[in-house]
Order: sequence, then structure tokens, then C-alpha cells
Amino acid sequence: MSGKIVGILGGGQLGRMLAASASLLNVKIVILDAGENGPAKQVIAPPAPHLSHIDGSFTDREKILELAAKVDVLTVEIEHVDVTALEKIQSSSQRPLEIHPSPSTIKIIQDKFRQKEHLAAHGSPVSEFVPVDSTVESLHTAAQKLGLPLMLKSRTLAYDGRGNFVIRELAQAEEAIAALGGRPLYAEKWVPFVKEIAVMVVRTTSGDVQSYPVVETVHKENICHLVFAPLRSRDPGLFSRVRSIAENAVRSFTGAGVFGVEMFLMENGNIYVNEIAPRPHNSGHYTIEACETSQYENHLRAILSLPLGSPALKVPSSVMLNLIGHSSSMSEIIETTNMALTTPGASVHLYGKAECRKGRKMGHITLVAESDAELRARLRPLLASLPSSSPEELDLYAPVPPVPGSGFSNRDPLVGIVMGSDSDLPVMLAAARILDQFTVPYELSIVSAHRTPDRMVEYARSASTRGLRTIIAGAGGAAHLPGMIAAMTALPVIGVPVKGSTLDGVDSLHSIVQMPRGIPVATVAINNSTNAGLLAVRILSAGIPSLITAMEKYMNAMENEVLKKVDRLEEVGWEKY
Amino acid sequence: MSGKIVGILGGGQLGRMLAASASLLNVKIVILDAGENGPAKQVIAPPAPHLSHIDGSFTDREKILELAAKVDVLTVEIEHVDVTALEKIQSSSQRPLEIHPSPSTIKIIQDKFRQKEHLAAHGSPVSEFVPVDSTVESLHTAAQKLGLPLMLKSRTLAYDGRGNFVIRELAQAEEAIAALGGRPLYAEKWVPFVKEIAVMVVRTTSGDVQSYPVVETVHKENICHLVFAPLRSRDPGLFSRVRSIAENAVRSFTGAGVFGVEMFLMENGNIYVNEIAPRPHNSGHYTIEACETSQYENHLRAILSLPLGSPALKVPSSVMLNLIGHSSSMSEIIETTNMALTTPGASVHLYGKAECRKGRKMGHITLVAESDAELRARLRPLLASLPSSSPEELDLYAPVPPVPGSGFSNRDPLVGIVMGSDSDLPVMLAAARILDQFTVPYELSIVSAHRTPDRMVEYARSASTRGLRTIIAGAGGAAHLPGMIAAMTALPVIGVPVKGSTLDGVDSLHSIVQMPRGIPVATVAINNSTNAGLLAVRILSAGIPSLITAMEKYMNAMENEVLKKVDRLEEVGWEKY
Repeated sequence: MSGKIVGILGGGQLGRMLAASASLLNVKIVILDAGENGPAKQVIAPPAPHLSHIDGSFTDREKILELAAKVDVLTVEIEHVDVTALEKIQSSSQRPLEIHPSPSTIKIIQDKFRQKEHLAAHGSPVSEFVPVDSTVESLHTAAQKLGLPLMLKSRTLAYDGRGNFVIRELAQAEEAIAALGGRPLYAEKWVPFVKEIAVMVVRTTSGDVQSYPVVETVHKENICHLVFAPLRSRDPGLFSRVRSIAENAVRSFTGAGVFGVEMFLMENGNIYVNEIAPRPHNSGHYTIEACETSQYENHLRAILSLPLGSPALKVPSSVMLNLIGHSSSMSEIIETTNMALTTPGASVHLYGKAECRKGRKMGHITLVAESDAELRARLRPLLASLPSSSPEELDLYAPVPPVPGSGFSNRDPLVGIVMGSDSDLPVMLAAARILDQFTVPYELSIVSAHRTPDRMVEYARSASTRGLRTIIAGAGGAAHLPGMIAAMTALPVIGVPVKGSTLDGVDSLHSIVQMPRGIPVATVAINNSTNAGLLAVRILSAGIPSLITAMEKYMNAMENEVLKKVDRLEEVGWEKY
Repeated sequence: MSGKIVGILGGGQLGRMLAASASLLNVKIVILDAGENGPAKQVIAPPAPHLSHIDGSFTDREKILELAAKVDVLTVEIEHVDVTALEKIQSSSQRPLEIHPSPSTIKIIQDKFRQKEHLAAHGSPVSEFVPVDSTVESLHTAAQKLGLPLMLKSRTLAYDGRGNFVIRELAQAEEAIAALGGRPLYAEKWVPFVKEIAVMVVRTTSGDVQSYPVVETVHKENICHLVFAPLRSRDPGLFSRVRSIAENAVRSFTGAGVFGVEMFLMENGNIYVNEIAPRPHNSGHYTIEACETSQYENHLRAILSLPLGSPALKVPSSVMLNLIGHSSSMSEIIETTNMALTTPGASVHLYGKAECRKGRKMGHITLVAESDAELRARLRPLLASLPSSSPEELDLYAPVPPVPGSGFSNRDPLVGIVMGSDSDLPVMLAAARILDQFTVPYELSIVSAHRTPDRMVEYARSASTRGLRTIIAGAGGAAHLPGMIAAMTALPVIGVPVKGSTLDGVDSLHSIVQMPRGIPVATVAINNSTNAGLLAVRILSAGIPSLITAMEKYMNAMENEVLKKVDRLEEVGWEKY
């Protein structure tokens, strides 16, 4: 695809996945890594005998120069490289040699304090932070400014939580300084976030940016544990806000490639940028199976000035589970990957690392599914197979409701069943029973257009970003609920006219069905919420084709039931029937 | 995942994709191939210094023995290997060594005549065939039995159409024998198929089989050109028939791995097995991006006795386009891959072959999309970039209708708009206009429940396998059409009550909405087919999330229109308004 030869500083798992993408495009790769047969070198042969991979560290100036001499474009799979060497190469190279991202970007990002300063100066929302030196006094001053608890952070060489210390009371100051041992430090105001989120942004050589979907990241012992894509939210405006913050942050740097933007989401919807990685990132592994173009391929396209690929999701729901070493033995990793082999939608990625260690990233598993509920059902046994999973953590992913059909809402509903009054419940229950029968996850609640109008607005406005795909609304009399919900969501809304004590339900029917041009309500027969449930299943089949087969089975069963009655009628005669 | 080392006979593109899958699972691979740095060897380093890849032919007995000595499991990426060597290894190996598929399977499949005999003996439907020798008399006898035209075929070493000769008249007999030059031959009855189809079947070491979706294959100059997955058909029973034939055929062989089963589909729905490949196959490349588990990974899982992965599609629609060398220059290949880089949903696979040649498989592109219509729109520019595309061929993939909104049905509709009578057309046109506005592909026709009942049955029964995802049916008076269609399809059906000359449309409304329990019709307001179109768009959003955004935009535009009227009312006063 490109005659250019790409040199990668670092040959771990990110380099391995970059190399795998490169071979699809016939992009020639030379790897600099200390491991003679490390993860990346295992999956891409050197492009030619004189272009062999290099055994050496990405912090070894001589080796970096050796790599630079062999290639046309330099890039990194880790930011802790010798950036002075890169700057020197950039300023002195006799021939056209590109470095992506630019050395200055890597330099800013290497130093977390400078990174924060840079972000703040470019209008990115960051939590308060102050420089400190390694003295107790300095920490006291910081605590006065930022309050307690505060985060004491190493400015350099910090990752996976190493280099962070939470100071809860000032008495810990000395301990904290000792723990971060001599490295340059700074302090950050404590951020009581409700969720950690991330966005991969890809930046072209001409500075254009494109972003991947917003994901939720779950960390465990400070190491990325799970990444859910896409994020669901009650806040319909959240995604565009987050993506615009991430894109603006990446625009402020120079050089091409993908950037991982990690952010904190606050209770009130505020967002803080936590930190940025100038390279493919763990929170973007899911893109290999779940997006039209993976972060790895788009990194290569960006640094080679090729057109970017679409970052759109191609599956409804996905999650990435890191396989972190539990001890020096691989047996736990093998147990989980064996479980993954029996899990539909699971893709195993083992990194080919020679040795397992506690805390080491040995591989990951990506799961895809047709719905969040199916995804969590697939994820649960994998989590249960991890020795590090606590009972509390497994509870988080336990099936909700614990028993299907037990009368509680599913945690990840595809269908919302709402009714104007609890008096409608006996009618509406039939819809719930149908969804139980088809194992379609749903929620059921009371939302009254007239008595809880604010709740109705919030319910309708947040429905699609929460992950609902259709809503069944039952109402009697004036029966405004289905139509009003339909006016505030783009989802298909099914209306069930509930029969009141007067007018035989014709009032509700006409109120629900006779919607003005522009806002449709899919109306079913009076009191027939069975059909509303069945219609919801049919609607979902537009995204879950297996529901077509399930519905055909249901229809065949109905047919057979009638045919049995035909037989019985012939057998016993209609007088006895 | 498995301590076993796998040896692959052959290291071309199929070996390359097998190797890429192997590295995800940390499966150790040793490759035997004549190319020193061939496609497969480029993407997988030898597992250890004493387990280096072997430079040599897969027909070289000594080299095969050398490979066998290094590995625990032998498999093939091509069936034209020295099978006697494999048989010898199987019978004489001192240590446990598995060969998949079994040498006897490879031996049967290598000889197309024996393959046909085997299939016929095991109840697989094959077209008539007879043995011939290389004499004109023998061909005359064959023609008497099979009729003309007939296919004269080489029994061995035939692929991509090489080794086939179509005899249209007996005068060609000598020419045909000369063309197939001295190879053992047989003759096959001419099969006037309407489509070529294929299924990948994976067989475990214990003989269980699982099959991938049925696909349509399109050949050009006898080489696989396009593979569409899944196949669409008017015949709702076709898929299960085809899969059962393919699975039965594969059950009749021994050994594990994936098998490509190529079949002919006849006008009357009959199916003939054409031939079987005992390995990953070109018609299964699409599985890498489009299925939960690729054919390559499942081949490895099968031969290593690991659990099989799900072969289900994870995207609605996909197509694979082979990149075939046009000349010794790569420039045409590069032009098409450049086009693919700007095509959403396109994944490029270049095979890293050193030289391009006419007819050589240099790579392939897989496209995925949310609908067949989107897929074809993405495919068209790629086909147009191929120098081998004739204007007639491009016409096949030209947009239908040529101009959106021109009043003709789309070739790949997601929505069917039907009405009981042409007198309903003025009412139903509004639905079509809405779908045009959202660029949703649809078809529009007349289907009368009472006047064309057979047509209605066929329309409803074939709707989902043809690719429709929802149906809008308009009817007046007794208005049976929506409900009767809903009774014969699992798709969501939207009913539009059309107002007749009496009863104000209430007759149609009640006929359509008051469906019995079990069969729902999504009813909209009387004569309001605008809302039917909008409801169809909302329903499709369950599978095409971008339609949510489009619908939100539409709703905002409506809101702004009304707000403008509010402004005008305030500006000019209601007397002048």
C-alpha cells in the first residue's frame, strides 16, 4: 500500500497488533525491541535481509539511530522512549524521515505535569494540579490548595497506576514521597468520578481528527481490566461533548497517529481529561473486532498519509477483557482462554510473551454481541474463571433479574414497557410474559404523561442512549403516553390502548393511533399487549436476525395448537367438543 | 492454547491467514513451502531455532518427512500434496502424529472422479458423470449418455477452471483431449445452474460438523471473483436444504478441519454438489470480518481438538472481492486497494506475494455493511476500478433505481410497500417519499389479499429470506392485507388504513388494528402513510443505529418549522397570518 518502511520503537503487544495490521496492507515494518523474539517480532518477518529487526531498547540512543537509518517513518508503541534521540534525528536527518507522533508531542506527554499544563493551556478540562517538590512542606502547601485526599503523581515513567499515591491525610506525606522514590512529582486534586471513559482519536498528517466511539473503562488495581464499547448513558448529549473534548485535546498536539484519551465522568456530567497516550491504547483493542477499521490500521494509515478508515462500530455491543498475569504460571490465563473458546462472539488474543508475571498483560479477549444483555451473559463465565475476581465483582455482573420472569427489570433492557397507571398492569403484563418467552431483556415501570410529565420527558429523551431499541407504552382514556413518548425519542413506540370503564377502549385506540403526520405510534388492538410484546420482538429482529427464526417457531407452535383442535373436533364431534 | 505444534503443507495466502489466526491463539506453526519468504512465512516466526520453517515443495516426500518430524499435527492449505508421503507417515510414525484432514480424504478429493463417486455413494446430489479415456470414441460414448454440451474434466491437479473443457459439439473432441493434455479425464453432464453457492463446513476430530452461512459465489474466467454472504433467496426453505447437503457431504469424509463445499443451485431449487476443498477456501475469506469465528481459526480449533467457535454472522451483509493479477504489474491491484482505503467497511488483505502475474490471487477485500444496498453501493466503485470489469458487469451492480425517487423499486430493498389496489397509490406514495428522504431502499407493488391471494402468500413467505426487514401494507374497507401478511412472515408489518368512500376509514382502521392475539400489526392513523414510512425508519434503527441520528434530525427540523411559524405569528399577528 505504501512503499515506505515503518520503524516501530517497542515490540510488545501494541507493536504486535500494529504489525498484524501492517501485514494486511503489505506495509514493511522494522521493529526495535530488547526481546529477540518478542511479541511483535513473532508476527512480522523483516522486510529484507538488510532490514532485519533490531534487538535493543527503545531508550538506547544508538539503537534508535540504527532503526532510523533503515526506515522512512518512525513511530512508537510506547511513549517512554529516548525522545532526545528522536529530536536529534528530526533536526539532523539528511533524508526525508517522518516521526509520528512528533518528538515534541512525545516529550510533552512523557512528563505528566507538562502534559496537564499543555492541556489546560489549550482549553481542555483538567482537574486542578500544582507542582510539588519532594518535601513534606511542599505537600502541605499543595493540600492547602487542593484539599484532601489528593493524588501525588510521578511526572515521568508512570503507567498502570505505578507512580501514583493517594494522600488521604497529611501524615502520609513522608510515606508518599518515599514510595515514589526520588522521581519528579506533582499533585492533583482528587476527582470523585462516577465512571472512567475513553475515546481513541486518530490524527492525520494534515491535522484532521476523527474519533472512535466513547467507551467505558474499568480498572482493577490501577490496571485496565474491562472496556465496554459503546458507553450507554442517560445523558443524551454526553457522547458529542466527550468526543469534542477528546478531539480538541488531540488537535492541540502535533504529528499523526492514534491517541488514547482517558477521561473522568463526574456525577453532574462534567468531564475531565485524565491523560493521553500518543499511540494505540489498551482502551482501543476492541476496535479490531468491533469497528469497521481498527485503531492499529488507522494508526498506520495516519502516519503513512493514507486515507483514514471508518471508526464506526460494526456490532451492537462489545467488551474487552485484559488477561493479566496472576503469578508466574500461565495456568490461570489458559483457563480463561479455554472458557473463551466455548463462548460465542469471543476472540482470543494471546501476545506470545515468553514469561508470565503478576500484573503483566498476557493477552486479551474481545467479546461481541447483539445486545448489552447478551454481552454480559457471555462475559460472566469469563470473569468467574479469573482467580482475581472477588464475589462482589461477580455480583456486579450477575444476571439481573436473578431469575427470568421474576418480575424485576433487566439491567440492560432492549425494550421498555411503560404504562400510565398501575391499574394498567394486569393488561400490560402479557407483553412482559411474551418478552420473557423470547428471552428479550426488558424493563417495566410506571410513567404517567399527566401525573409525572418530567419523568416522562427524561424517560423518552434518554431511551436511545441508554440502549433501548423500542418502547411499549400502554394507556387508557385520553391515552397520551405513547404519542408523547414518540414525540421525544427516535425509537419505534408501540401503543397499547387500554380499555377504560367507558367507551370500550375506542377512546384510547383513537387517541393512540390517530397521531399527526410526523410522529408515528405503532398501535395494536385494544388491551392486546400480547401483540405489543410480539411486535417488539419482530421490531428487534431488524437488528437480531435470530429472532426471525424464534418468531417463526412461535407461529408454527400456534398453528399446531389450532391443528390439534381441528383433530379433536373431528375425533369427538362438535357436540361433545 | 495448545502445546501442539502444527505443520502446514503449503505457505500461500491460505497458509498466511491460518498463521495469522494461529498467532492470536499462540499456536506454534512450522511451514513447508518452496518460497523462502512466501506469504505465510512472512507473518509467523518459527516457534524455536530448531523448529524453523522449511523451504521446499509440499510434493517433495523428503521435505514432508522433515516437516512431520518437527510437529504434532499436520495439515494442508492445498490438496495437491504428496498424499503417499502422508499415508506412509500415518502408518509408520513412531509417536502420536495427527494428520488433518486424513490422507484418505485428501486422496479421494485429489481425484475429482473418485470424489464424485464418493459423494454419489454417500447420497450427495451430484450431476451425472462417466469415466472417459483420452479417445474420441470414449467422448462420443459419454456424449450419448450425458448429452451436449458436456464438461470434460481433468481428474487431477485442476483448479480455477484449469483442467476443464466445455464440449459443445462432438467435432471439438480432439481439441478437448489435446487441451487437457494427457491427464486422466472424466466427463460430467452440463449443469445449467442459476447460481453458484458455497458453504464452509467445519468437522471436529470426533466427526461433528457445523456450517457457516450459505453464500453466493460469482466466478469470472473460472476464478472466484465475488462472494456474497449471506445468500438471499425467495425460497424460504433453501438455506436449511443447502446446509444439510453440505454437512452430509462433509460427514462422509474422515479427519478434521474446515471443508469448502461448492454447489450449483438450479432454477427449480435443486442443488448439486460441484466439488469439495478439504481446507480453508476462498469462499470463506469473508468469515474473518463477518463471522464470530473465522474459518481459519475454526480450522485450527478443529485439528487441535479445541472447541469450535460460533460460525454465525456478526454483520448484516458482506462481500469478498478477489484481487486478481491483471498483468505483471501491481499497479491495478494498488489502484483498487487505494479505492478500498476510502470505502467504509472495507478491509484490505494483501498477500505479500513477490510477483504479480495475470490470474494470480494477490489479495482480497472484504466489505461489510448494514444492508445489501449499502454493500453494493460500497462495492461498485471497487469494481469500477478493476481493469477487468466490463460495462455489462458494472451494469449488474449499477444502482437500481438509477435515480433515487424515480419511482422504481430498489434491487435490494429493506422495506416492502404493498397495497391492495392501485387506487391506494396516492395515499401510499407518502411512505415512499419518506423512505427516499432517509435513503432507505424499498420496493413498492400491488399485492391484493382477495384478488391475488397466491401472490400474497409468496410475497409474505419469502419476505425475510429475500432480505426485507419490515413491510408496509395499505388497505381499505375489509382491509385484510396487513393482517394476512403478518400471519405469514415473522417481520414487523405496518398497517395503513386507507379511507374508503363509506365509513370514513374506520372500517379499515378496525380491520387492521384489531388483530387476534398472536399476530400483531403495527397500525398507524387513517391514510397516514407518512407515519408508516417514519415508523419503518424507526424500526430499521434497531439494526442501523445511524437512523436514530437521522430521525432526530428530522424531528428537530419539524420542531424548527413550527417555531418559525410561532415567530411569524408574533411578527405579523394572527389577523394577518
